Amino acid sequence: RGALFLIAGPCQLEDDALNLRVAEHLARLAERVPGGIVFKASFDKANRSNPGAMRGPGMEQGLEALARVKEATGLPILTDVHLPEQCAPVAEVVDVLQIPAFLCRQTDLLEAAGATGRPVNVKKGQWMHPEGMRGAVQKVRRASRGHERLSLPSGDAVAVTERGTFFGYGDLVVDMRGFTRLREACDAPVIFDATHSVQQPGRGEAGASGGLREFIPTLAAAAVAAGADGLFMETHPDPDHAPSDGPNMIPLDQLDALVARMVRLWEAARA
Amino acid sequence: RGALFLIAGPCQLEDDALNLRVAEHLARLAERVPGGIVFKASFDKANRSNPGAMRGPGMEQGLEALARVKEATGLPILTDVHLPEQCAPVAEVVDVLQIPAFLCRQTDLLEAAGATGRPVNVKKGQWMHPEGMRGAVQKVRRASRGHERLSLPSGDAVAVTERGTFFGYGDLVVDMRGFTRLREACDAPVIFDATHSVQQPGRGEAGASGGLREFIPTLAAAAVAAGADGLFMETHPDPDHAPSDGPNMIPLDQLDALVARMVRLWEAARA
Amino acid sequence: RGALFLIAGPCQLEDDALNLRVAEHLARLAERVPGGIVFKASFDKANRSNPGAMRGPGMEQGLEALARVKEATGLPILTDVHLPEQCAPVAEVVDVLQIPAFLCRQTDLLEAAGATGRPVNVKKGQWMHPEGMRGAVQKVRRASRGHERLSLPSGDAVAVTERGTFFGYGDLVVDMRGFTRLREACDAPVIFDATHSVQQPGRGEAGASGGLREFIPTLAAAAVAAGADGLFMETHPDPDHAPSDGPNMIPLDQLDALVARMVRLWEAARA
Amino acid sequence: RGALFLIAGPCQLEDDALNLRVAEHLARLAERVPGGIVFKASFDKANRSNPGAMRGPGMEQGLEALARVKEATGLPILTDVHLPEQCAPVAEVVDVLQIPAFLCRQTDLLEAAGATGRPVNVKKGQWMHPEGMRGAVQKVRRASRGHERLSLPSGDAVAVTERGTFFGYGDLVVDMRGFTRLREACDAPVIFDATHSVQQPGRGEAGASGGLREFIPTLAAAAVAAGADGLFMETHPDPDHAPSDGPNMIPLDQLDALVARMVRLWEAARA
Repeated sequence: RGALFLIAGPCQLEDDALNLRVAEHLARLAERVPGGIVFKASFDKANRSNPGAMRGPGMEQGLEALARVKEATGLPILTDVHLPEQCAPVAEVVDVLQIPAFLCRQTDLLEAAGATGRPVNVKKGQWMHPEGMRGAVQKVRRASRGHERLSLPSGDAVAVTERGTFFGYGDLVVDMRGFTRLREACDAPVIFDATHSVQQPGRGEAGASGGLREFIPTLAAAAVAAGADGLFMETHPDPDHAPSDGPNMIPLDQLDALVARMVRLWEAARA
Repeated sequence: RGALFLIAGPCQLEDDALNLRVAEHLARLAERVPGGIVFKASFDKANRSNPGAMRGPGMEQGLEALARVKEATGLPILTDVHLPEQCAPVAEVVDVLQIPAFLCRQTDLLEAAGATGRPVNVKKGQWMHPEGMRGAVQKVRRASRGHERLSLPSGDAVAVTERGTFFGYGDLVVDMRGFTRLREACDAPVIFDATHSVQQPGRGEAGASGGLREFIPTLAAAAVAAGADGLFMETHPDPDHAPSDGPNMIPLDQLDALVARMVRLWEAARA
Repeated sequence: RGALFLIAGPCQLEDDALNLRVAEHLARLAERVPGGIVFKASFDKANRSNPGAMRGPGMEQGLEALARVKEATGLPILTDVHLPEQCAPVAEVVDVLQIPAFLCRQTDLLEAAGATGRPVNVKKGQWMHPEGMRGAVQKVRRASRGHERLSLPSGDAVAVTERGTFFGYGDLVVDMRGFTRLREACDAPVIFDATHSVQQPGRGEAGASGGLREFIPTLAAAAVAAGADGLFMETHPDPDHAPSDGPNMIPLDQLDALVARMVRLWEAARA
Repeated sequence: RGALFLIAGPCQLEDDALNLRVAEHLARLAERVPGGIVFKASFDKANRSNPGAMRGPGMEQGLEALARVKEATGLPILTDVHLPEQCAPVAEVVDVLQIPAFLCRQTDLLEAAGATGRPVNVKKGQWMHPEGMRGAVQKVRRASRGHERLSLPSGDAVAVTERGTFFGYGDLVVDMRGFTRLREACDAPVIFDATHSVQQPGRGEAGASGGLREFIPTLAAAAVAAGADGLFMETHPDPDHAPSDGPNMIPLDQLDALVARMVRLWEAARA
C-alpha cells in the first residue's frame, strides 16, 4: 500500500463520447497519481431511490462500453455487480469488481465475486460498524483462494471502501477513525469514497438523493490525512445534467487540482 | 387496517418438529389476535455477519417445509426472498413475500416480488428515512398491477416494516414518529419488527449480532401506542440455542402474555 | 409511582392574564389526572439560541408571578434554575425545582437544588446516555439528605426527564428504552417531556429551534406505553405567537383530549 | 489565521511541580509551533460524571497557580469558567477565557466572558449543529465591544472549538465538515479539541468517561487537513494516574512528535 491510488469515472455509463472523454482525461491524470487510476462506471444503477429513474445500459452493452474504454485508454476498469450471476461475465472484462454498500452483507454475491479471482472492492454499508466488514472480506477471500488473477493498485486482492455513515435522516458523516479500524479488522487497503459520502439521502428533487458537493475536497483531505490508501470519486464534465448522482459528483475540470493536492497531502501524511 | 395482526415464527426453518411446534402454538394463539397471525420463517439467511454461520435449508427444501406448516396449521405463510428469480417459485407456496431491510432498494427484487401478485412486506433499511421507503413501495406496486392474488391481514397489497435505525455503532433506535411518516409516505400498513429492533450489531459472540431481548415488550408497547398496524416477532422455544438471532428472539413461552397485552393496548390506543 | 401525573404550563412567564388563564385551565383539568398537575413556567430562558430573544421577567418578578398562580389555583409550582444562588430563593416559592438539560452535569447547581430540600426534576441532556444520569441524581440526593420538605406527585424527591436525544443536526429522537434504563440507573420516577422532544434545533426562523408539534400526541402515547411515570408538556392558548418554543408547544385547546387519552393508555399499559 | 497554534496542558491543575513540568515542556515546544502555544488547565472540573470525583483546587488557589505558570514560562494562559461571576477575576490573570461545551448556550456566562475584553474560546456542545454556535459567538461579541484587551494567537477575539458530537450512547464522532461550517457561521477561527473528542462517555470505570487515546493522532491529522486553525490537546506525563480525563489525554512524551507532524501537515494542507 505504498502509493495513493484513485478510482474515478462517471456514476453510470453514458454514450461512448462521454465515457471516453472522461476516461481519456483520467488516463492523462494517471501519470501524476503514484498508485495510478482505475476507471469506474456502472452498467446498472440497481437501487435508484425512485422507480423510473435512469439505470444505465445494462450488463451486456455496458461491458462492451467498458471494453472500449479499456482499449482506448489502457486504464484498468472497475464496475459494480448486483447479482451473483453477473460476477463471472463481468470478470471477463473488468479488472476490479465492486460490491455496492447496500449489498455488503449478501453472502452469495460476495462469494461469487471472490470466485472470479478478480480483486474485489467492498463498500461499507451506511449502517455498519467498521469491524462488521471483517465478515464481508472473509467471504470474498475464502471464495477466491486459488483463483487469483489480478490485483488492485495496492497489490491486494480485496479492498474496503468507506462511503459515509448514517447521521440522522438525510445526512451522512465520515468517521475518520474508521480507516484504521477497517484496516485492522479486514487487513485490506481502505478507500475513501469522497463523492457518495456527501450524499444527502432524500433531500434532492422528488425524494432523490441530494449532495453537498462543496465538501468533497475537505473530506478527501481529511481522509488522506487519516490514513486512507486510495480515493474514489465520481466525476462528470457536467454534473448538473448527469443521469444520476449529479449533486455529489466533482466536476471534471476541478479534478486535477484536487488530485494534485491530495497527492501532496498524502506525501506529507506518510512522511 | 382495523385489527392488530402479528407476523411470527422462528428466525430460520429448522426441522419439522421445531417448525410445527412453533406454528401450532401460533395457530392456537391466533384466535386471540384480532387481525390474525402470519407464520414467518426463512429458508435462507443470506446475509449472516460471518461466513460459515448457519443459513437454513435453502429454497427448495425450505418451501416444502413451509408447505407442511401451512397444511398442518392453516396459517398463512410469509418468507423472505433475496434474489429476483426466487420470487415466482416462492409465491407458489407462501402467502406473503418479504424483502429484507438490506435489500429494500434493489429495484429488480422489488419488481419481481410485486409481479407475483402476492402481497409484499418491505423492511425499512437501518439507514433509511421513512420517506425513502416511498420509492420501494412504488416499485412493488407498479409491478403488481393486474396481478393481485391475495392480501395481507390488513387487506393491503404492500406493507412496510420498521426494524430499527442506526444509532451509533452496535446499537439501533426505534423512532416512534416513523409509523406515521411511513404510513403517510407509503399509504400502506406499518408493521413493527420488535425483535430485530433490539439487535446490537457486532456485539454478540465473534462479531455476530447481540440483542437486548428484555426491551422487546417495551418497544412493542410503544409502537402499538404510536400507531403500528401490525407486529413482527421472531420466537423460539429455546432462543439461546437457536441457529440464528437467539439474542433478540422472544421465548415462545412468553409470547402469549405479551401478545395479550399488546391487543389490550391496541384497543386502548385506537379507542 | 402509582398514578400518572402531568407537569404543564407556558414555556415562559408572560403577563398575569396569560399565566392565570393557562393555570386555571390546568387546575380544572387536574381533577381528571390521577397523579395531579404541577404548573410549570420559566422566569428566565437563560439559553436562547439567539442573543436578543425574549428571556422572561427575571427571578424576582417571576417568583412573584408564580406565587400569584399558586394562590389563585392551588396548583403546585415548578420552575427551572440556572445558577446555584437561585436555588434558595426559588425554593421559598416553588414546590419543585427543575434542572435544565444543558445543565444536568453542573455539580454546584445540582447540589444547591438538592440542599433546598425541595424535590428536583433533572432533565437529561440531549447527548447523555441514560446511565449517565445516575451521577446527576446522586449529586442532588447527597445534598438533600436531612432537608426534605416536600415531594413530587409520585412521592419521590428526585425525578429524571427525557426530552429527546441528538439524532443528527436539527433533529431529536426519543429512545423508548430510556425510561426503563433511567429508572434502573437512577431509582427515580421518569418523566417524558413531550414538547421539547419534538424540537428541531436550528430549523426555525433565524436559526431558532423549529418544532414538529404534530408528533406530540404520538410520542406521548408511546412513552406512556413504554413506562413513563409522568408527562411534561408546554402549552399555550396561541403557540404561534408565544415568546418562545411556539413551534413545539401544544395548543391549550387540544390539551384536555390529549391528556384524557394518555390517562386511558396509562391504565391499559399498567393493567 | 496564518499559523497553526496549540492550546495544551493538563486537564486540571495539580501541584506546582506537575503544572510547571508540563508548562516548561510546552514553552520549549512552542518555539516549533508557528502560532505558538497557550497553556490550559482547569481550576474546577465543575461537571464530573460522578459526585466525589476530584474537581481541582478551586478558583482562588487555581488562579494563583496559573499566575505562577505564566511567570515561570511566559506562556499565555487559558482556563475555563463556569459561572458569570468567575469571569472578571479570572480575566485578571488569564489571557483567554474558555466556555465549556455543556455551557455554550448560557447567555449570562457568554456575556460575562465577553465583557472582560479577553478573548473567549467557546466549545461546541456535543448536541449542537455547527450553525447553532453563531448565537453563542454573537453573545460574546456583543458584550465585548469596546472592551478588547488582548487577542488569540490568531488575532481574533473569539474562537470556536469542536470537541466531538454525539454518535450513539458512549461514543463521539468528529464531523470534518464542521470546521468549514463553523468558520462560515461564526466568522471565527476553529479549533479542534483532539483529546476530548476521543472520550467515550460512561464507558470508563464506575460510569466515568472512557477514552480512545490511540485515535488522537488520526483525528488531529484529519482536522488539520480539513481546515482547523488550531489544536487543543490535554497532556500529562502520566495520564493513567491523572485525576481526570486520563483515558483521553496524550502522554507528554508523545506530544512533540505529534505536534511536529501536525505542523508539517498544516503546511502541506495550506500550500
